[in-house]
Amino acid sequence: MDLKNYLKERCAIVDEALERSLPGEGDLPVSVHRAMRYSVFAGGKRIRPVLMLAACEAVGGTPDLALPAACAMEMIHTYSLIHDDLPAMDDDDFRRGRPTNHKVFGEAIAILAGDALLTEAFILMSSPEYAAKAGHARILPVIHEIGICAGSRGMVGGQVVDMESEGKKDIDLATVQYIHTHKTGALMKASVKAGAILGGAEGDALAAMTRYGEAIGLAFQIADDILDIEGTTEQIGKDAGSDEARGKATYPAVMGLADSKRRAQELVDLALEALSPFGEKAEPLREIARYIVSRKS
Amino acid sequence: MDLKNYLKERCAIVDEALERSLPGEGDLPVSVHRAMRYSVFAGGKRIRPVLMLAACEAVGGTPDLALPAACAMEMIHTYSLIHDDLPAMDDDDFRRGRPTNHKVFGEAIAILAGDALLTEAFILMSSPEYAAKAGHARILPVIHEIGICAGSRGMVGGQVVDMESEGKKDIDLATVQYIHTHKTGALMKASVKAGAILGGAEGDALAAMTRYGEAIGLAFQIADDILDIEGTTEQIGKDAGSDEARGKATYPAVMGLADSKRRAQELVDLALEALSPFGEKAEPLREIARYIVSRKS
Repeated sequence: MDLKNYLKERCAIVDEALERSLPGEGDLPVSVHRAMRYSVFAGGKRIRPVLMLAACEAVGGTPDLALPAACAMEMIHTYSLIHDDLPAMDDDDFRRGRPTNHKVFGEAIAILAGDALLTEAFILMSSPEYAAKAGHARILPVIHEIGICAGSRGMVGGQVVDMESEGKKDIDLATVQYIHTHKTGALMKASVKAGAILGGAEGDALAAMTRYGEAIGLAFQIADDILDIEGTTEQIGKDAGSDEARGKATYPAVMGLADSKRRAQELVDLALEALSPFGEKAEPLREIARYIVSRKS
Repeated sequence: MDLKNYLKERCAIVDEALERSLPGEGDLPVSVHRAMRYSVFAGGKRIRPVLMLAACEAVGGTPDLALPAACAMEMIHTYSLIHDDLPAMDDDDFRRGRPTNHKVFGEAIAILAGDALLTEAFILMSSPEYAAKAGHARILPVIHEIGICAGSRGMVGGQVVDMESEGKKDIDLATVQYIHTHKTGALMKASVKAGAILGGAEGDALAAMTRYGEAIGLAFQIADDILDIEGTTEQIGKDAGSDEARGKATYPAVMGLADSKRRAQELVDLALEALSPFGEKAEPLREIARYIVSRKS
């Protein structure tokens, strides 16, 4: 299969659904809705929603069963970027080459736009239209899973430990692994697991999908750490070497570059292994796993 | 009925359920969980969860059907207070006589504790145990309703317009009404409506409960505006007259004190009128409506 075309086509489906799902630019209050849309449509790769659609299809579902939850996932990812960029947090002025949300709309609106995007995700997943299509009994566990992976025992927890570790000497592997599996890994795992649930997976199939999601979630972040060292500023859309400059807890910092690459590849192998029961329909998930460690941006 | 005892007893039920529902102080990462608990257990009156339990019972349900959603509502209310108090927003150092969350834990943890509380609310409402008790088909519409009332077309929208109006001259009644019905009213209406849905209300009964919720939501905020003028600093736990000092958009500022009192009383009458079909079981809701405009704190 041609992964590049596949990703492009899926991105377009997700973008179109996000366009329909978000409050309009002209809806009152205008400022917060403009701020929400500014960051949602800022050129993200839509990797989480694409994973959710692909997992849904891999277990025999149709993509429309996962599309609203996939958009919700992208809203949660976007809110986390807006809040992470705030002066009180990572204090970033640029993301993907554009000024960050608070640089354009001010801190107060950026905080509120993030809050509203997180809330909107749950509004979208609990809509009567979606319940009629995918069924109450599948949607409620998906909301629960996504909530846990986004909250203080998931992504938010990872951000807390990441901030608290910044600049500290002697961060150990267990801490780096905690940060990575929570801050980035949790939403990627949740994307795959939610897609599988919405596609009808249970028991062994759901467990295998969860293993796949966990493995690629960690591999993705290790690959990110490696890119920060080896990529050019142009490729990665932020200053190369910025992790090291900030004293960020990364895999290369605790286990070296060569071992980090080896670990990322092992995780991709584990992910592919987990997919062995799924046959042809899981081919996009396999290609995404390979892409995650070979990408240049 | 003895409202004071009723509120005290209901508060205790909600506090005990919140205690069980929130991640523990010792759960990792400790800082964010301590911050979440600090603000949830800061002496709030639990008016929203108590309303939800009372609405559930008024339509014939048992309080346990509403208790998790009632705790979720208090978490959402608490997250909104933490974020509203931030330096970039209202910049408050004290709330209910205690230092605000960011004064104790720092801005970054305060932002994240707010994010996590909002997320936790949806985790709690979507738990498998709750679904087994109250039924998927009732919980999903409740999540949807609470989400809409909390998001950019509800509470967050109200906070946006409130901030954007601060210090402006010639704020009109329509703007003040927008702020009040969204910033405070939306969650109070959602509390009543959610309680009614969880108790099994449909059609006319649900519509009547919604009218009650809307009326007391607005009455509550008008009463708050009046208290800010007439209450003592000790009674209201913040500087008396602070709304005027900040140039806040309030009812007394646009329609005067006497007309504001009249409007609050009219809304209470409307609320009581809406409850007329409900008989004895709605007595707590009636007492709460009367209390809302007569309270001194």
